[in-house]
Amino acid sequence: MKSAKNGEYTEEMRYIAKKEGVDIEKLRRAVAKGHVVILRNTKHNVEPVGVGSGLRVKVNANIGTSMDIVNVEAEVRKAKIAKKYGADTIMDLSTGGNLPEIRHRIMKEVPMVIGTVPIYEAAWQMLERKKAIVEMSEDDMFNAVESHLRDGVDFLTIHVGVTREAVEKMKKHPRVVGTVSRGGTFHAAWILHNDKENPFYENYDYLLELLAEYDATISLGDGLRPGGLPDATDFLQIHELYTIGRLVKRAREKGVQAMVEGPGHIPIDQIEANVKMAKIATDNAPFYVLGPLVTDIASGYDHITAAIGGAIAAKAGADFLCYVTPAEHLALPNEEEVKLGVIATRIAAHAVNLTRFEDEYKWDYEMSKARASLRWDEQLNLSIDKENAIKIRKERYPHSPQVCTMCGEFCAIKILRDYLNEGKE
Amino acid sequence: MKSAKNGEYTEEMRYIAKKEGVDIEKLRRAVAKGHVVILRNTKHNVEPVGVGSGLRVKVNANIGTSMDIVNVEAEVRKAKIAKKYGADTIMDLSTGGNLPEIRHRIMKEVPMVIGTVPIYEAAWQMLERKKAIVEMSEDDMFNAVESHLRDGVDFLTIHVGVTREAVEKMKKHPRVVGTVSRGGTFHAAWILHNDKENPFYENYDYLLELLAEYDATISLGDGLRPGGLPDATDFLQIHELYTIGRLVKRAREKGVQAMVEGPGHIPIDQIEANVKMAKIATDNAPFYVLGPLVTDIASGYDHITAAIGGAIAAKAGADFLCYVTPAEHLALPNEEEVKLGVIATRIAAHAVNLTRFEDEYKWDYEMSKARASLRWDEQLNLSIDKENAIKIRKERYPHSPQVCTMCGEFCAIKILRDYLNEGKE
Repeated sequence: MKSAKNGEYTEEMRYIAKKEGVDIEKLRRAVAKGHVVILRNTKHNVEPVGVGSGLRVKVNANIGTSMDIVNVEAEVRKAKIAKKYGADTIMDLSTGGNLPEIRHRIMKEVPMVIGTVPIYEAAWQMLERKKAIVEMSEDDMFNAVESHLRDGVDFLTIHVGVTREAVEKMKKHPRVVGTVSRGGTFHAAWILHNDKENPFYENYDYLLELLAEYDATISLGDGLRPGGLPDATDFLQIHELYTIGRLVKRAREKGVQAMVEGPGHIPIDQIEANVKMAKIATDNAPFYVLGPLVTDIASGYDHITAAIGGAIAAKAGADFLCYVTPAEHLALPNEEEVKLGVIATRIAAHAVNLTRFEDEYKWDYEMSKARASLRWDEQLNLSIDKENAIKIRKERYPHSPQVCTMCGEFCAIKILRDYLNEGKE
Repeated sequence: MKSAKNGEYTEEMRYIAKKEGVDIEKLRRAVAKGHVVILRNTKHNVEPVGVGSGLRVKVNANIGTSMDIVNVEAEVRKAKIAKKYGADTIMDLSTGGNLPEIRHRIMKEVPMVIGTVPIYEAAWQMLERKKAIVEMSEDDMFNAVESHLRDGVDFLTIHVGVTREAVEKMKKHPRVVGTVSRGGTFHAAWILHNDKENPFYENYDYLLELLAEYDATISLGDGLRPGGLPDATDFLQIHELYTIGRLVKRAREKGVQAMVEGPGHIPIDQIEANVKMAKIATDNAPFYVLGPLVTDIASGYDHITAAIGGAIAAKAGADFLCYVTPAEHLALPNEEEVKLGVIATRIAAHAVNLTRFEDEYKWDYEMSKARASLRWDEQLNLSIDKENAIKIRKERYPHSPQVCTMCGEFCAIKILRDYLNEGKE
């Protein structure tokens, strides 16, 4: 960001301008203003990912162990699956097993931009030391951040906006679901227990210095995001958003790249307003949404609920979609659910990207042409999940290889093509 | 519709006003103006379904055999699955086997509002008689309509808008994909072959008289709907839409209920315009969309693509969503795919309905409350697919029954609840 402010083109900017087919000077200006962030820690040897206005909407996949299910091999496989099906980044949200070892393993095996929530590691260390999470010291918190930065983590979710003032307001403004952000909840409980300000807020300048050293991006976590439709767009959420807006400004002043996390659970008729409000409150910081889910009743199908919300959010200006898997609200996702989550969210992102980028639209155009000419192999090859498309067609193979088993000889394309050809002779 | 125009409340209106919790006088006026249609053939003993402004967005599931796959038992099971997972109506689109027998069987076994496309049966009969589809007579077409009406079919898709003029325009305005509506293609080929006007257009008044006799609804098929994003919102589509608008007017004048079918494949940034245009062109006729799909590249996942488009269309004013299954563009759907299609489309419809109807929102509210208090049995019971939610949780059951295997003891809700309770003591 400092180079961008100085008018310089960095290697990362060149890479992204080329990859996305955008003008490098426009990109530099966007980075300088903080409207675009480039995710890559200087210590991490991966291809950078750009997030923000004028670039493609990106997809993140969360992976990681839980206290109940610790299987590092499975998490590595999940990261590989996420990459294979087109996630742009992953977040390692592990909370069980040896956290640093798991992170090192995933980063070694799957070279892609990675994000983490360092406070989970600080909390995990307390449990390892048989202590309560709220007994964590300020140093414990900062040490976690520093160790993630040293490891080369590209973007760090930190809940700086969960301030003492916000916690006071939580008491006065009750919610139906309450707080559902794990990191946000740790901070809220810590503030209540210790009767002190959030150390990341209190020492925000120091935090920014650490981040600047590695050119890492701070992802300002929305600790007070709604956990259900009844709490959507409430005072607590918006109060925190405006706090985050001020934090974005301070980060930019220090040359630190900042993006902003958003909800969560939003009724379909409030999504656009949420995105616009976030863009205003944060002066167009890259906006990273989780879902959002447009209904609470679809446990087992929240990848679909999130694809609906994500597509609408992206269309309204959200820059980065965090996937949701079918296991959300029920369990830690397995490998198949990670795949379904990535594909659903990618459909949402692509649906918007194709309206903005010629080459994204070309994919759909080629598919349309393959369908029109009944070139089945090409249709299957162009499908977002080729193996699955081939499997479905093979399972129910038609008598005539030109058509499919839905319409058979009633195939509209075939009839009219045959007919018009006949007419011409 | 005639009763509504005369200011009378029919049994159907009373039933729907009560079921949807809407004012009966408002409903009567909407029916009189044609802004709402009540789907039920006077010969069909089922609960009627209302479609249109002011009512809940409804979901239709297509079932039916194909020439390649004829398994009547499976189709009956698909109809039952569609009903179980909340489809409001089904359409029997069978094209293989003995069509009338299949229809009778499905209608007998699964009492719910049903729609059909009678031209399929006329085409099938030609093939049975070893003749070309285009050799069909006008009587063949009308006989199919009459037999469906006598059988009690509640709504009939008829492609009256595929006129000679439209076919002429097809020649001058080439498309990438062409025509993908089966019924539309039959008519286009018939017009070209016979060098005559579409009989349903030519004898539209007679068609309306038949429909009026059974109080059946005509669903004006969009024979020229786009078959891929490159053809979306093109001249052919819009030209047909305005023809359909005139046909709606004529139907209303004869006291026949009419709804209008819409695309298909629409880029995400054109959906709202498409819905608004359809409402204008048809003077607010109930608008019934297929999907729409927001990308062409997701074969195998088109239930998700359609859920995104359907939710956006419904929010913009579409009244009736036809589901799309994961098998779309690949094969005839199996039972599991019918289930996935219904659930995805229902999520889309519910996401919009909950913003308009208190009792729909209440479902989400109850789920939020159950989540906040960690009442797992209630959460699972409230899920759109209870068995599936129970299965996922059971497979990965947490050590502590209060939480789930994603967050475990890091459960935000549990921590803050425990903490705040602790604080209170």
